[in-house]
Amino acid sequence: MDNSKIGQHISGQFNKELEDVRNKVLTMGGLVEQQIELAVTAFATGDLEMAELVIKQDNQVDALEMAIDQECMQILALRQPAAFDLRLLITIIKVVNDLERVGDMAERIAEMAIQLSSADTKRDQYYELEHMAELVQDMLHGALDVFARMNVEDVPSITGLDENVDREYGSIIRQLITKMMEDPRNITRMLDVLWIARSLERIGDHACNVCEHLVYMVKGEDVRHLTQEELEKKMKE
Amino acid sequence: MDNSKIGQHISGQFNKELEDVRNKVLTMGGLVEQQIELAVTAFATGDLEMAELVIKQDNQVDALEMAIDQECMQILALRQPAAFDLRLLITIIKVVNDLERVGDMAERIAEMAIQLSSADTKRDQYYELEHMAELVQDMLHGALDVFARMNVEDVPSITGLDENVDREYGSIIRQLITKMMEDPRNITRMLDVLWIARSLERIGDHACNVCEHLVYMVKGEDVRHLTQEELEKKMKE
Repeated sequence: MDNSKIGQHISGQFNKELEDVRNKVLTMGGLVEQQIELAVTAFATGDLEMAELVIKQDNQVDALEMAIDQECMQILALRQPAAFDLRLLITIIKVVNDLERVGDMAERIAEMAIQLSSADTKRDQYYELEHMAELVQDMLHGALDVFARMNVEDVPSITGLDENVDREYGSIIRQLITKMMEDPRNITRMLDVLWIARSLERIGDHACNVCEHLVYMVKGEDVRHLTQEELEKKMKE
Repeated sequence: MDNSKIGQHISGQFNKELEDVRNKVLTMGGLVEQQIELAVTAFATGDLEMAELVIKQDNQVDALEMAIDQECMQILALRQPAAFDLRLLITIIKVVNDLERVGDMAERIAEMAIQLSSADTKRDQYYELEHMAELVQDMLHGALDVFARMNVEDVPSITGLDENVDREYGSIIRQLITKMMEDPRNITRMLDVLWIARSLERIGDHACNVCEHLVYMVKGEDVRHLTQEELEKKMKE
């Protein structure tokens, strides 16, 4: 299945409406991806202006979420779509909810970057956190790519990364606990780092949610709450 | 506005479908409320069987979410509703997403209760956590009540509680940090308690989300991302 699914409507205006709302989702996705990139860089470099920018951008993300929701509701009310078009619009409503939450996580990371900037200079110790960030960025980018191409073949390879994310997350938490025990003066700072790790882990979960919504959109099957193995099997059917 | 909004359709069958899906949401809400109650009690008493029950119940919650989603999609496709009915169905799809997340939080609390049961005997020190649990339970119960009665007048008094939840959450985090510093052997255990506090705080957020969705359903206005003051003003309009 590809984009040609859109473009088969008798009404050219309806096509235009669907294309427009799809493009807005991709814009929102791009903005959220940028937020994560900036937030992680702000943490790694201690760049406060960059962190402030991420926090400001969250208003744009929120505004896009509301605009997209409203457009979907208008199309649902006026066009009364069925089958794929109905699933597309309901999926978009769900996807933008996840993207908005990812934006919140990026904002959270930026806030922690600001708190940590004064306290902390040895940033090279957070190598694992940066690697975790790369992983969840790959997952989100993959999920948005699936949406852009409407091809869900790649979904299992994206959701499969979540296991790695969870493993890295567990390892980071254990390291943070060790550092806290070694020097209790580290505790507040290490908790800030812990919230960053937690936010990244949640971004991975949201990327998986987006993938699951997209499988529903394309195949009409609800694959939430399946294990990775069950999902892989289902996608081969 | 009251339940009489439903029941004005020419088709008695359509009424029945909407009533049925509404009842399922209330069943799901009741189940999730029970999950929180059991999870918090399991933590307070160290009752492992109770904690296991919460974890098992999560499958029921997930199944209800998927069943309700599917029913909504079927009604949307077959009845092509407009105006209030359309908003009702889209709102239900959003509300069950939040309820499912609340179920996940309850499961998380139950898991922490299990981890803590072997390590910890002095439970009376968590008085503030129990108070926070009562607050978010009140919020969720209030939100479900708004849904049952379709009367959004009470919304500001529910969302207004979130400020208290956030304050208690901040106070608990500070206490946990102090306890970690006093005795670093406490760190792992205190982090488990921290995850419980965090889960409760998130339940409060989800109760607010549900309220916001319901305002949209009843009044057709998107009140997400408003401050509490802006929301109060908007509700008086």
